[in-house]
Amino acid sequence: MKIAIVGVGLIGGSVAITLREKKIAEKILGVDKHEGNLQKAVQLGLVDEGVPLEAAISRCDIIFLTLPVDAILKLLPSILDQVDNQVVIDMGSTKERILQSVADHPKRGRLVAAHPMAGTEYSGPEAAIHNLFKGKMMVYVDATNSDEDAFEAADAITEHLEMHTTFMNAREHDIHTAYVSHISHITSFALALTVLEKEKSQGRIFELAGSGFESTVRLAKSSPDMWTPIFKQNRENVLEVLQEHIKQLQHVHHVLNTEDYDAFYRLIKKSNKIRRILK
Amino acid sequence: MKIAIVGVGLIGGSVAITLREKKIAEKILGVDKHEGNLQKAVQLGLVDEGVPLEAAISRCDIIFLTLPVDAILKLLPSILDQVDNQVVIDMGSTKERILQSVADHPKRGRLVAAHPMAGTEYSGPEAAIHNLFKGKMMVYVDATNSDEDAFEAADAITEHLEMHTTFMNAREHDIHTAYVSHISHITSFALALTVLEKEKSQGRIFELAGSGFESTVRLAKSSPDMWTPIFKQNRENVLEVLQEHIKQLQHVHHVLNTEDYDAFYRLIKKSNKIRRILK
Repeated sequence: MKIAIVGVGLIGGSVAITLREKKIAEKILGVDKHEGNLQKAVQLGLVDEGVPLEAAISRCDIIFLTLPVDAILKLLPSILDQVDNQVVIDMGSTKERILQSVADHPKRGRLVAAHPMAGTEYSGPEAAIHNLFKGKMMVYVDATNSDEDAFEAADAITEHLEMHTTFMNAREHDIHTAYVSHISHITSFALALTVLEKEKSQGRIFELAGSGFESTVRLAKSSPDMWTPIFKQNRENVLEVLQEHIKQLQHVHHVLNTEDYDAFYRLIKKSNKIRRILK
Repeated sequence: MKIAIVGVGLIGGSVAITLREKKIAEKILGVDKHEGNLQKAVQLGLVDEGVPLEAAISRCDIIFLTLPVDAILKLLPSILDQVDNQVVIDMGSTKERILQSVADHPKRGRLVAAHPMAGTEYSGPEAAIHNLFKGKMMVYVDATNSDEDAFEAADAITEHLEMHTTFMNAREHDIHTAYVSHISHITSFALALTVLEKEKSQGRIFELAGSGFESTVRLAKSSPDMWTPIFKQNRENVLEVLQEHIKQLQHVHHVLNTEDYDAFYRLIKKSNKIRRILK
Protein backbone atom coordinates (compact mmCIF):
# COMPACT_ATOMS: atom_id res chain seq x y z
CA MET A 1 0.00 0.00 0.00
CA LYS A 2 1.23 3.50 -0.83
CA ILE A 3 0.75 6.12 1.86
CA ALA A 4 0.91 9.91 1.62
CA ILE A 5 1.59 11.97 4.73
CA VAL A 6 0.50 15.55 4.09
CA GLY A 7 2.16 17.52 6.88
CA VAL A 8 5.20 15.64 8.22
CA GLY A 9 5.11 16.75 11.87
CA LEU A 10 4.47 15.09 15.21
CA ILE A 11 1.25 13.32 14.16
CA GLY A 12 2.06 12.55 10.52
CA GLY A 13 5.59 11.44 11.37
CA SER A 14 4.38 9.19 14.18
CA VAL A 15 1.80 7.56 11.86
CA ALA A 16 4.59 6.96 9.35
CA ILE A 17 6.84 5.32 11.97
CA THR A 18 4.19 2.76 12.92
CA LEU A 19 3.05 1.98 9.37
CA ARG A 20 6.63 1.39 8.32
CA GLU A 21 7.42 -0.75 11.38
CA LYS A 22 4.39 -2.93 10.75
CA LYS A 23 5.22 -3.17 7.04
CA ILE A 24 1.81 -1.80 6.07
CA ALA A 25 3.30 0.80 3.77
CA GLU A 26 5.39 -0.30 0.81
CA LYS A 27 6.08 3.36 0.12
CA ILE A 28 5.53 6.53 2.16
CA LEU A 29 5.48 9.89 0.38
CA GLY A 30 5.74 13.12 2.32
CA VAL A 31 4.20 16.49 1.49
CA ASP A 32 5.04 19.69 3.34
CA LYS A 33 5.12 23.31 2.29
CA HIS A 34 8.15 23.78 4.54
CA GLU A 35 11.04 22.36 2.52
CA GLY A 36 13.13 22.03 5.70
CA ASN A 37 10.54 19.79 7.36
CA LEU A 38 10.43 17.60 4.30
CA GLN A 39 14.20 17.19 4.16
CA LYS A 40 14.30 16.35 7.86
CA ALA A 41 11.49 13.83 7.45
CA VAL A 42 13.45 12.08 4.68
CA GLN A 43 16.69 12.20 6.71
CA LEU A 44 14.91 10.72 9.73
CA GLY A 45 13.52 7.94 7.51
CA LEU A 46 9.94 8.93 8.25
CA VAL A 47 9.10 9.20 4.55
CA ASP A 48 10.82 7.78 1.45
CA GLU A 49 10.63 10.98 -0.57
CA GLY A 50 9.14 14.43 -0.57
CA VAL A 51 6.74 15.17 -3.42
CA PRO A 52 4.23 17.87 -4.40
CA LEU A 53 0.68 17.40 -3.10
CA GLU A 54 -0.76 16.53 -6.53
CA ALA A 55 1.79 13.77 -7.08
CA ALA A 56 1.14 12.36 -3.61
CA ILE A 57 -2.61 12.19 -4.27
CA SER A 58 -2.28 10.52 -7.64
CA ARG A 59 0.39 8.01 -6.54
CA CYS A 60 -1.02 6.90 -3.17
CA ASP A 61 -3.87 4.75 -1.86
CA ILE A 62 -4.29 6.48 1.46
CA ILE A 63 -3.70 10.17 2.10
CA PHE A 64 -3.28 11.38 5.66
CA LEU A 65 -3.99 15.03 6.37
CA THR A 66 -1.88 15.82 9.42
CA LEU A 67 -1.70 19.58 9.04
CA PRO A 68 -2.80 22.57 11.10
CA VAL A 69 -6.58 22.80 10.79
CA ASP A 70 -6.53 26.05 8.82
CA ALA A 71 -4.49 24.30 6.14
CA ILE A 72 -6.88 21.34 6.13
CA LEU A 73 -9.83 23.70 5.71
CA LYS A 74 -8.13 25.38 2.80
CA LEU A 75 -6.84 22.30 1.00
CA LEU A 76 -9.53 19.70 1.56
CA PRO A 77 -11.98 20.63 -1.25
CA SER A 78 -9.25 20.64 -3.90
CA ILE A 79 -7.79 17.40 -2.53
CA LEU A 80 -11.16 15.69 -2.87
CA ASP A 81 -11.41 17.13 -6.40
CA GLN A 82 -8.31 15.14 -7.32
CA VAL A 83 -9.34 11.90 -5.63
CA ASP A 84 -10.57 8.86 -7.49
CA ASN A 85 -10.80 5.81 -5.23
CA GLN A 86 -8.19 6.85 -2.72
CA VAL A 87 -9.04 7.28 0.93
CA VAL A 88 -8.39 10.62 2.61
CA ILE A 89 -8.03 10.55 6.40
CA ASP A 90 -8.39 13.96 8.06
CA MET A 91 -6.69 13.88 11.46
CA GLY A 92 -7.35 17.48 12.48
CA SER A 93 -8.34 18.56 16.00
CA THR A 94 -11.54 20.35 14.96
CA LYS A 95 -14.26 18.94 12.73
CA GLU A 96 -17.40 21.01 12.36
CA ARG A 97 -16.18 23.68 9.95
CA ILE A 98 -13.94 21.33 8.01
CA LEU A 99 -16.72 18.83 7.40
CA GLN A 100 -19.23 21.57 6.56
CA SER A 101 -16.85 22.80 3.86
CA VAL A 102 -17.06 19.50 1.97
CA ALA A 103 -20.56 18.39 3.00
CA ASP A 104 -21.82 18.46 -0.58
CA HIS A 105 -18.64 17.44 -2.30
CA PRO A 106 -19.24 14.53 -4.72
CA LYS A 107 -16.22 12.75 -3.25
CA ARG A 108 -17.22 13.28 0.43
CA GLY A 109 -17.51 9.51 0.81
CA ARG A 110 -13.74 9.07 0.26
CA LEU A 111 -13.05 11.18 3.35
CA VAL A 112 -12.79 9.66 6.82
CA ALA A 113 -12.75 12.25 9.61
CA ALA A 114 -10.76 10.91 12.53
CA HIS A 115 -9.13 12.59 15.49
CA PRO A 116 -6.47 10.68 17.36
CA MET A 117 -6.52 11.84 21.00
CA ALA A 118 -2.76 11.66 21.26
CA GLY A 119 0.04 14.14 21.09
CA THR A 120 2.79 15.90 22.99
CA GLU A 121 3.67 19.55 23.44
CA TYR A 122 6.32 19.25 20.72
CA SER A 123 5.95 19.69 16.98
CA GLY A 124 7.77 19.06 13.72
CA PRO A 125 9.23 15.85 12.24
CA GLU A 126 11.81 15.51 15.06
CA ALA A 127 8.90 15.28 17.50
CA ALA A 128 7.56 12.09 15.85
CA ILE A 129 7.79 9.09 18.18
CA HIS A 130 7.14 5.36 18.34
CA ASN A 131 3.86 4.23 19.86
CA LEU A 132 2.40 7.73 20.12
CA PHE A 133 -1.06 6.30 19.43
CA LYS A 134 -0.92 2.96 21.25
CA GLY A 135 -3.75 2.58 23.74
CA LYS A 136 -5.14 6.04 22.93
CA MET A 137 -8.57 6.91 21.57
CA MET A 138 -9.37 7.44 17.89
CA VAL A 139 -12.57 9.44 17.48
CA TYR A 140 -14.43 8.87 14.21
CA VAL A 141 -16.59 11.83 13.32
CA ASP A 142 -19.72 11.61 11.15
CA ALA A 143 -18.54 8.15 10.11
CA THR A 144 -21.76 7.35 8.29
CA ASN A 145 -20.89 9.97 5.68
CA SER A 146 -17.86 7.95 4.60
CA ASP A 147 -18.04 5.16 2.01
CA GLU A 148 -17.99 1.79 3.72
CA ASP A 149 -14.74 0.67 2.05
CA ALA A 150 -13.05 3.98 2.87
CA PHE A 151 -14.03 3.67 6.51
CA GLU A 152 -12.85 0.05 6.65
CA ALA A 153 -9.47 1.03 5.20
CA ALA A 154 -9.05 3.80 7.77
CA ASP A 155 -10.18 1.54 10.60
CA ALA A 156 -7.67 -1.14 9.60
CA ILE A 157 -4.95 1.48 10.06
CA THR A 158 -6.38 2.52 13.43
CA GLU A 159 -6.05 -1.12 14.43
CA HIS A 160 -2.41 -1.16 13.35
CA LEU A 161 -1.90 1.96 15.47
CA GLU A 162 -3.37 -0.12 18.36
CA MET A 163 -5.97 2.49 19.28
CA HIS A 164 -9.40 2.27 20.89
CA THR A 165 -12.24 3.80 18.90
CA THR A 166 -15.37 5.82 19.50
CA PHE A 167 -17.91 7.59 17.30
CA MET A 168 -19.56 10.99 17.49
CA ASN A 169 -20.92 13.74 15.32
CA ALA A 170 -18.93 16.87 14.47
CA ARG A 171 -20.79 19.11 16.87
CA GLU A 172 -20.31 16.78 19.85
CA HIS A 173 -16.67 16.32 18.93
CA ASP A 174 -15.92 20.02 18.91
CA ILE A 175 -17.70 20.64 22.22
CA HIS A 176 -16.01 17.70 23.93
CA THR A 177 -12.53 18.63 22.73
CA ALA A 178 -13.10 22.21 23.91
CA TYR A 179 -13.63 20.77 27.40
CA VAL A 180 -10.98 18.10 27.61
CA SER A 181 -8.24 19.44 25.36
CA HIS A 182 -8.53 23.03 24.16
CA ILE A 183 -9.23 24.57 27.58
CA SER A 184 -6.24 22.75 29.07
CA HIS A 185 -4.04 24.56 26.59
CA ILE A 186 -5.53 27.93 27.46
CA THR A 187 -5.04 27.41 31.19
CA SER A 188 -1.41 26.47 30.52
CA PHE A 189 -0.81 29.50 28.28
CA ALA A 190 -2.35 31.82 30.88
CA LEU A 191 -0.46 30.23 33.76
CA ALA A 192 2.83 30.58 31.91
CA LEU A 193 2.06 34.24 31.17
CA THR A 194 1.08 34.92 34.79
CA VAL A 195 4.30 33.48 36.15
CA LEU A 196 6.60 34.84 33.44
CA GLU A 197 5.17 38.28 34.16
CA LYS A 198 5.80 37.95 37.89
CA GLU A 199 9.36 36.79 37.28
CA LYS A 200 10.16 40.24 35.89
CA SER A 201 9.70 41.83 39.31
CA GLN A 202 10.48 38.91 41.62
CA GLY A 203 13.48 37.37 39.92
CA ARG A 204 14.45 33.79 40.66
CA ILE A 205 10.90 32.54 41.07
CA PHE A 206 11.42 29.43 38.96
CA GLU A 207 14.01 27.92 41.30
CA LEU A 208 11.04 26.62 43.22
CA ALA A 209 9.15 25.18 40.27
CA GLY A 210 8.50 21.51 40.92
CA SER A 211 6.76 18.73 39.06
CA GLY A 212 3.29 20.11 39.84
CA PHE A 213 4.03 23.39 38.13
CA GLU A 214 5.69 21.63 35.22
CA SER A 215 2.68 19.40 34.77
CA THR A 216 0.13 22.23 34.67
CA VAL A 217 2.21 24.46 32.43
CA ARG A 218 3.89 22.10 29.96
CA LEU A 219 1.20 22.59 27.28
CA ALA A 220 2.34 26.23 27.09
CA LYS A 221 5.19 24.90 24.97
CA SER A 222 2.67 24.11 22.21
CA SER A 223 3.04 25.56 18.74
CA PRO A 224 1.09 28.74 17.94
CA ASP A 225 0.95 27.70 14.27
CA MET A 226 -0.98 24.62 15.17
CA TRP A 227 -3.11 26.04 17.99
CA THR A 228 -4.24 29.45 16.75
CA PRO A 229 -6.28 27.87 13.91
CA ILE A 230 -7.81 25.34 16.32
CA PHE A 231 -9.09 28.15 18.56
CA LYS A 232 -10.29 30.05 15.50
CA GLN A 233 -12.31 27.10 14.25
CA ASN A 234 -13.63 26.09 17.66
CA ARG A 235 -14.06 29.64 18.91
CA GLU A 236 -17.64 29.49 20.18
CA ASN A 237 -17.23 26.30 22.18
CA VAL A 238 -13.93 27.47 23.61
CA LEU A 239 -15.40 30.83 24.63
CA GLU A 240 -18.18 29.02 26.45
CA VAL A 241 -15.90 26.73 28.41
CA LEU A 242 -13.44 29.53 29.11
CA GLN A 243 -16.27 31.61 30.53
CA GLU A 244 -17.28 28.76 32.80
CA HIS A 245 -13.70 28.18 33.86
CA ILE A 246 -13.22 31.84 34.75
CA LYS A 247 -16.42 31.63 36.78
CA GLN A 248 -15.04 28.65 38.71
CA LEU A 249 -11.83 30.55 39.42
CA GLN A 250 -13.78 33.61 40.55
CA HIS A 251 -15.70 31.37 42.90
CA VAL A 252 -12.44 30.00 44.34
CA HIS A 253 -11.27 33.59 44.73
CA HIS A 254 -14.48 34.55 46.52
CA VAL A 255 -14.33 31.59 48.90
CA LEU A 256 -10.71 32.33 49.81
CA ASN A 257 -11.31 36.07 50.04
CA THR A 258 -14.18 35.61 52.47
CA GLU A 259 -12.17 32.98 54.39
CA ASP A 260 -14.83 30.32 54.04
CA TYR A 261 -12.44 27.43 54.55
CA ASP A 262 -15.19 24.85 54.92
CA ALA A 263 -16.40 25.77 51.44
CA PHE A 264 -12.80 25.69 50.21
CA TYR A 265 -12.37 22.20 51.63
CA ARG A 266 -15.56 20.97 49.96
CA LEU A 267 -14.49 22.52 46.69
CA ILE A 268 -11.19 20.56 46.67
CA LYS A 269 -13.04 17.43 47.80
CA LYS A 270 -15.44 17.81 44.88
CA SER A 271 -12.65 18.33 42.39
CA ASN A 272 -11.07 15.11 43.74
CA LYS A 273 -13.82 13.28 41.85
CA ILE A 274 -11.58 13.62 38.83
CA ARG A 275 -9.83 10.53 40.30
CA ARG A 276 -12.69 8.54 38.84
CA ILE A 277 -11.58 9.63 35.36
CA LEU A 278 -7.80 9.71 35.61
CA LYS A 279 -5.77 6.60 36.26
CA MET B 1 21.18 8.58 64.76
CA LYS B 2 17.55 8.37 65.89
CA ILE B 3 14.97 10.01 63.68
CA ALA B 4 11.37 10.99 64.40
CA ILE B 5 8.90 11.40 61.57
CA VAL B 6 5.94 13.42 62.80
CA GLY B 7 3.28 12.85 60.17
CA VAL B 8 3.94 9.59 58.30
CA GLY B 9 2.55 10.49 54.87
CA LEU B 10 4.00 11.05 51.39
CA ILE B 11 6.80 13.39 52.50
CA GLY B 12 7.64 11.90 55.90
CA GLY B 13 7.47 8.35 54.58
CA SER B 14 9.69 9.19 51.60
CA VAL B 15 12.28 10.81 53.91
CA ALA B 16 12.21 7.64 56.03
CA ILE B 17 12.76 5.38 53.00
CA THR B 18 15.92 7.22 51.97
CA LEU B 19 17.37 7.58 55.47
CA ARG B 20 16.89 3.88 56.09
CA GLU B 21 18.32 2.89 52.68
CA LYS B 22 21.42 4.98 53.30
CA LYS B 23 21.78 3.63 56.82
CA ILE B 24 21.66 7.13 58.33
CA ALA B 25 18.97 6.20 60.79
CA GLU B 26 19.63 3.52 63.35
CA LYS B 27 16.03 3.88 64.49
CA ILE B 28 13.02 5.67 62.97
CA LEU B 29 10.06 6.50 65.19
CA GLY B 30 6.73 7.51 63.70
CA VAL B 31 4.14 9.88 65.14
CA ASP B 32 0.67 10.32 63.67
CA LYS B 33 -2.66 11.20 65.22
CA HIS B 34 -4.30 8.81 62.78
CA GLU B 35 -3.67 5.38 64.29
CA GLY B 36 -4.36 3.72 60.92
CA ASN B 37 -1.58 5.69 59.22
CA LEU B 38 0.84 4.73 61.94
CA GLN B 39 0.02 1.03 61.65
CA LYS B 40 0.40 1.19 57.89
CA ALA B 41 3.73 3.00 58.20
CA VAL B 42 5.03 0.23 60.50
CA GLN B 43 3.67 -2.50 58.20
CA LEU B 44 5.32 -0.88 55.20
CA GLY B 45 8.60 -0.71 57.11
CA LEU B 46 8.75 3.09 56.88
CA VAL B 47 9.13 3.45 60.65
CA ASP B 48 10.22 0.98 63.34
CA GLU B 49 7.49 1.85 65.79
CA GLY B 50 4.71 4.31 66.40
CA VAL B 51 5.05 6.41 69.55
CA PRO B 52 3.42 9.48 71.12
CA LEU B 53 4.86 12.85 70.14
CA GLU B 54 6.49 13.47 73.53
CA ALA B 55 8.32 10.15 73.44
CA ALA B 56 9.51 10.81 69.90
CA ILE B 57 10.95 14.19 70.87
CA SER B 58 12.77 12.91 73.94
CA ARG B 59 14.14 9.77 72.26
CA CYS B 60 15.30 11.23 68.91
CA ASP B 61 18.13 13.43 67.60
CA ILE B 62 16.29 14.81 64.61
CA ILE B 63 12.57 15.46 64.44
CA PHE B 64 10.94 15.92 61.04
CA LEU B 65 7.65 17.80 60.92
CA THR B 66 5.92 16.46 57.82
CA LEU B 67 2.37 17.40 58.68
CA PRO B 68 -0.31 19.63 57.18
CA VAL B 69 0.72 23.23 57.89
CA ASP B 70 -2.16 23.90 60.29
CA ALA B 71 -0.90 21.06 62.49
CA ILE B 72 2.67 22.42 62.31
CA LEU B 73 1.43 25.88 63.32
CA LYS B 74 -0.42 24.39 66.27
CA LEU B 75 2.26 21.97 67.50
CA LEU B 76 5.52 23.80 66.84
CA PRO B 77 5.71 26.01 69.99
CA SER B 78 5.09 23.09 72.32
CA ILE B 79 7.53 20.89 70.38
CA LEU B 80 10.25 23.52 70.81
CA ASP B 81 9.33 23.72 74.52
CA GLN B 82 10.30 20.05 74.83
CA VAL B 83 13.51 20.26 72.82
CA ASP B 84 16.96 20.22 74.37
CA ASN B 85 19.70 19.82 71.74
CA GLN B 86 17.60 18.01 69.14
CA VAL B 87 17.12 19.44 65.68
CA VAL B 88 13.58 20.09 64.43
CA ILE B 89 13.17 20.23 60.66
CA ASP B 90 9.92 21.84 59.52
CA MET B 91 9.09 20.67 56.00
CA GLY B 92 5.82 22.54 55.57
CA SER B 93 4.76 24.27 52.34
CA THR B 94 4.21 27.71 53.92
CA LYS B 95 6.63 29.53 56.19
CA GLU B 96 5.73 33.08 57.15
CA ARG B 97 3.06 32.44 59.77
CA ILE B 98 4.74 29.33 61.13
CA LEU B 99 8.07 31.12 61.67
CA GLN B 100 6.36 34.19 63.12
CA SER B 101 4.71 31.96 65.72
CA VAL B 102 8.09 30.90 67.14
CA ALA B 103 10.15 34.00 66.32
CA ASP B 104 10.83 34.73 69.98
CA HIS B 105 10.96 31.18 71.22
CA PRO B 106 14.13 30.51 73.26
CA LYS B 107 14.69 27.33 71.25
CA ARG B 108 14.14 28.93 67.83
CA GLY B 109 17.75 28.08 66.95
CA ARG B 110 17.02 24.33 67.05
CA LEU B 111 14.49 24.76 64.24
CA VAL B 112 15.49 24.51 60.58
CA ALA B 113 12.77 25.65 58.19
CA ALA B 114 13.10 23.75 54.95
CA HIS B 115 10.69 23.15 52.09
CA PRO B 116 11.45 20.28 49.72
CA MET B 117 10.00 21.19 46.30
CA ALA B 118 8.93 17.63 45.67
CA GLY B 119 5.71 15.72 45.89
CA THR B 120 3.01 13.92 44.01
CA GLU B 121 -0.77 14.27 43.97
CA TYR B 122 -1.07 11.31 46.36
CA SER B 123 -0.99 11.31 50.15
CA GLY B 124 -0.65 8.96 53.10
CA PRO B 125 2.05 6.40 53.96
CA GLU B 126 1.26 4.24 50.89
CA ALA B 127 2.16 7.24 48.74
CA ALA B 128 5.77 7.30 50.04
CA ILE B 129 8.28 6.47 47.31
CA HIS B 130 11.99 5.96 46.69
CA ASN B 131 13.93 8.90 45.37
CA LEU B 132 11.10 11.40 45.73
CA PHE B 133 13.63 14.12 46.54
CA LYS B 134 16.54 13.20 44.29
CA GLY B 135 17.57 16.11 42.07
CA LYS B 136 14.83 18.36 43.46
CA MET B 137 15.24 21.68 45.27
CA MET B 138 15.38 22.10 49.05
CA VAL B 139 14.56 25.66 50.03
CA TYR B 140 16.03 26.80 53.35
CA VAL B 141 14.02 29.63 54.84
CA ASP B 142 15.44 32.21 57.26
CA ALA B 143 18.42 29.92 57.70
CA THR B 144 20.41 32.45 59.70
CA ASN B 145 17.91 32.07 62.54
CA SER B 146 18.95 28.45 63.02
CA ASP B 147 21.91 27.41 65.22
CA GLU B 148 24.90 26.55 63.06
CA ASP B 149 25.07 22.93 64.23
CA ALA B 150 21.32 22.48 63.72
CA PHE B 151 21.56 23.80 60.19
CA GLU B 152 24.57 21.58 59.43
CA ALA B 153 22.73 18.51 60.66
CA ALA B 154 19.73 19.32 58.48
CA ASP B 155 21.91 20.06 55.49
CA ALA B 156 23.74 16.74 55.85
CA ILE B 157 20.35 15.05 55.50
CA THR B 158 19.49 17.16 52.47
CA GLU B 159 22.71 15.88 50.94
CA HIS B 160 21.68 12.28 51.65
CA LEU B 161 18.37 13.06 49.94
CA GLU B 162 20.51 14.19 46.95
CA MET B 163 18.80 17.57 46.66
CA HIS B 164 19.94 20.95 45.37
CA THR B 165 19.63 23.80 47.83
CA THR B 166 18.66 27.46 47.82
CA PHE B 167 18.04 30.10 50.48
CA MET B 168 15.36 32.73 50.91
CA ASN B 169 13.40 34.56 53.56
CA ALA B 170 9.91 33.54 54.64
CA ARG B 171 8.16 36.29 52.75
CA GLU B 172 9.90 35.54 49.45
CA HIS B 173 9.27 31.84 49.95
CA ASP B 174 5.54 32.26 50.41
CA ILE B 175 5.21 34.57 47.40
CA HIS B 176 7.25 32.30 45.14
CA THR B 177 5.38 29.15 46.12
CA ALA B 178 2.08 30.95 45.49
CA TYR B 179 3.27 31.46 41.90
CA VAL B 180 4.91 28.16 41.09
CA SER B 181 2.99 25.71 43.22
CA HIS B 182 -0.19 26.92 44.91
CA ILE B 183 -1.75 28.51 41.82
CA SER B 184 -1.14 25.33 39.81
CA HIS B 185 -3.30 23.49 42.28
CA ILE B 186 -6.08 26.05 42.02
CA THR B 187 -6.13 25.92 38.22
CA SER B 188 -6.34 22.13 38.42
CA PHE B 189 -9.16 22.19 40.96
CA ALA B 190 -11.10 24.71 38.87
CA LEU B 191 -10.48 22.82 35.63
CA ALA B 192 -11.69 19.58 37.20
CA LEU B 193 -14.83 21.33 38.48
CA THR B 194 -15.50 22.94 35.09
CA VAL B 195 -15.32 19.64 33.25
CA LEU B 196 -17.07 17.53 35.89
CA GLU B 197 -19.93 20.04 35.78
CA LYS B 198 -20.17 19.82 31.98
CA GLU B 199 -20.17 16.04 32.09
CA LYS B 200 -23.54 16.14 33.84
CA SER B 201 -25.21 17.55 30.73
CA GLN B 202 -22.93 16.22 27.98
CA GLY B 203 -22.28 12.68 29.17
CA ARG B 204 -19.28 10.77 27.84
CA ILE B 205 -17.02 13.78 27.63
CA PHE B 206 -14.04 12.05 29.25
CA GLU B 207 -13.69 9.46 26.48
CA LEU B 208 -11.68 12.13 24.70
CA ALA B 209 -9.43 13.07 27.60
CA GLY B 210 -5.83 12.64 26.52
CA SER B 211 -2.48 13.18 28.17
CA GLY B 212 -2.74 16.98 27.92
CA PHE B 213 -5.91 17.06 29.96
CA GLU B 214 -4.51 14.57 32.44
CA SER B 215 -1.40 16.66 32.89
CA THR B 216 -3.24 19.91 33.61
CA VAL B 217 -5.79 18.33 35.91
CA ARG B 218 -3.86 15.72 37.88
CA LEU B 219 -3.21 18.02 40.84
CA ALA B 220 -6.97 18.06 41.40
CA LYS B 221 -6.43 14.68 43.04
CA SER B 222 -4.62 16.45 45.89
CA SER B 223 -5.76 16.07 49.50
CA PRO B 224 -8.06 18.79 50.90
CA ASP B 225 -6.66 18.09 54.39
CA MET B 226 -3.22 19.09 53.26
CA TRP B 227 -4.16 21.92 50.89
CA THR B 228 -6.89 23.86 52.68
CA PRO B 229 -4.45 24.90 55.47
CA ILE B 230 -1.83 25.91 52.89
CA PHE B 231 -4.28 28.28 51.19
CA LYS B 232 -5.39 29.57 54.57
CA GLN B 233 -1.82 30.41 55.60
CA ASN B 234 -0.80 31.79 52.23
CA ARG B 235 -4.12 33.46 51.54
CA GLU B 236 -2.95 36.95 50.59
CA ASN B 237 -0.27 35.87 48.14
CA VAL B 238 -2.58 33.30 46.58
CA LEU B 239 -5.37 35.86 46.17
CA GLU B 240 -2.96 38.17 44.39
CA VAL B 241 -1.70 35.57 41.93
CA LEU B 242 -5.20 34.20 41.39
CA GLN B 243 -6.40 37.70 40.55
CA GLU B 244 -3.61 38.08 38.01
CA HIS B 245 -4.31 34.66 36.53
CA ILE B 246 -8.01 35.46 36.11
CA LYS B 247 -6.97 38.71 34.38
CA GLN B 248 -4.79 36.73 31.95
CA LEU B 249 -7.68 34.38 31.20
CA GLN B 250 -10.04 37.31 30.68
CA HIS B 251 -7.53 38.74 28.25
CA VAL B 252 -7.43 35.45 26.34
CA HIS B 253 -11.23 35.49 26.32
CA HIS B 254 -11.28 39.05 24.98
CA VAL B 255 -8.77 38.34 22.24
CA LEU B 256 -10.70 35.28 21.09
CA ASN B 257 -14.06 37.01 21.42
CA THR B 258 -12.93 39.91 19.23
CA GLU B 259 -11.29 37.46 16.79
CA ASP B 260 -7.90 39.10 17.04
CA TYR B 261 -5.99 36.03 15.92
CA ASP B 262 -2.71 37.88 15.49
CA ALA B 263 -2.84 38.82 19.16
CA PHE B 264 -3.82 35.25 20.01
CA TYR B 265 -0.81 33.96 18.09
CA ARG B 266 1.53 36.36 19.89
CA LEU B 267 0.05 35.37 23.22
CA ILE B 268 0.84 31.67 22.63
CA LYS B 269 4.27 32.60 21.31
CA LYS B 270 4.96 34.60 24.46
CA SER B 271 3.82 31.79 26.72
CA ASN B 272 6.20 29.49 24.80
CA LYS B 273 9.00 31.26 26.69
CA ILE B 274 8.25 28.86 29.48
CA ARG B 275 10.43 26.44 27.46
CA ARG B 276 13.38 28.33 28.91
CA ILE B 277 12.31 27.15 32.37
CA LEU B 278 11.01 23.65 31.78
CA LYS B 279 13.21 20.86 30.55
